[in-house]
Amino acid sequence: MKLYIVGLGPGGGQDLTLRARDALAESDLLVGYTTYIDLIKTDFPGKPILSTPMRREEERCRLALQAAAEQTVAMVCSGDPGVYGMASLCYELAGEYPPVEIEVIPGVTAATGGGAVLGAPLSHDFAVISLSDLMTPMEVIETRLDCAARADFVLCLYNPASRRRKDHLRRACDIVLRHRPPETPCGYVQNIGREGERVVVLPLSQLREAEVDMFTTVYIGSSQTKIIGGKLVTPRGYLQR
Amino acid sequence: MKLYIVGLGPGGGQDLTLRARDALAESDLLVGYTTYIDLIKTDFPGKPILSTPMRREEERCRLALQAAAEQTVAMVCSGDPGVYGMASLCYELAGEYPPVEIEVIPGVTAATGGGAVLGAPLSHDFAVISLSDLMTPMEVIETRLDCAARADFVLCLYNPASRRRKDHLRRACDIVLRHRPPETPCGYVQNIGREGERVVVLPLSQLREAEVDMFTTVYIGSSQTKIIGGKLVTPRGYLQR
Repeated sequence: MKLYIVGLGPGGGQDLTLRARDALAESDLLVGYTTYIDLIKTDFPGKPILSTPMRREEERCRLALQAAAEQTVAMVCSGDPGVYGMASLCYELAGEYPPVEIEVIPGVTAATGGGAVLGAPLSHDFAVISLSDLMTPMEVIETRLDCAARADFVLCLYNPASRRRKDHLRRACDIVLRHRPPETPCGYVQNIGREGERVVVLPLSQLREAEVDMFTTVYIGSSQTKIIGGKLVTPRGYLQR
Repeated sequence: MKLYIVGLGPGGGQDLTLRARDALAESDLLVGYTTYIDLIKTDFPGKPILSTPMRREEERCRLALQAAAEQTVAMVCSGDPGVYGMASLCYELAGEYPPVEIEVIPGVTAATGGGAVLGAPLSHDFAVISLSDLMTPMEVIETRLDCAARADFVLCLYNPASRRRKDHLRRACDIVLRHRPPETPCGYVQNIGREGERVVVLPLSQLREAEVDMFTTVYIGSSQTKIIGGKLVTPRGYLQR
């Protein structure tokens, strides 16, 4: 049968694409992390649901692949399923299950969803980096931060903190501060498109001290980024050419 | 009044979010580049439209800001309006016009839209770089390519070629080849989500020779990227932890 891997956009609801909505409606079973399933389940009353807690990603993908042998299944992910989502893991595991057609349905990822709330920070070249060292050595993460700051990319940081990793954002800021001044415009958005959405624009020196959580997306400006009317904006260069 | 800056997603149509569709429906006037307006105008018959040709970006934003003084206007952009789109330019120019509320409505950007077609190439840290040197010195672009390749980011390249810039992709590949082997898995997608969509998976050595155009998005794998069942996949690391 078929496995849809569906991006819900940052908040579910209104940021869902028409294609994602249709795939959810067409599916016999919805599979996902409990928090994300909760964002959409009221829109599909009575539809069978399999939800699993955080950090059970492999189990979740295996359940979806197994179930897809006999019905149409939608595995739901926050944001885009291809950006730190479940799409790659499903492809990695698919060979162990009966053949099933996989269709990844893209969604608005947190980088651009949060960017829209802050203004237009990602309007020139940018690098997306997760600060989670659960599966990536901290050394690799730090090299990427250093190289991206050196080459003047705008930085967009996913998973900037967790209960266990309280100081990762401070370490990241200190690496960027080797290459950029403390007044560099930055920002962060918590709970993009959801209840409790919170937007903060601040200089790099203060971002170092910010209290963020795992539902926060962080932006560090390039040398060109500025604050215009309270918004974080990286010009593309149209007015300079 | 109000100016919506609306991302249509890669192809318009089915990749539009519910919020984008509602904003277009609510607007009194749609403004945009002719090609993108054509993707959606049949869905809004009779709605007034102002379309301008390519490379008239400043004029287009000024028209939208002027018109928004008296009515609700939607400026439409392909993909996400914050990624090489019109959002930053509108914020830069807004101060010259009567005050107007600006709301950026994010969309699926080509990076994740094309990624979904290819598989899951962006499932670990990635850098987005435009190869257009119309507004960015070639030297800056080349430094970014070199740093991103050195730090083992997946690379996603926008605007890899135009009639005038035929050899930029070859130059970019040669820079990446300093740090990665010629067999590195790569891919590209032309006309994502539109008529004539075309997907190619190929090694870096062949990407160098590929014939691409300005409607192509290019992906260069990291050291971890592999091809699984014809799909380009960058594992997140769940199976190694």
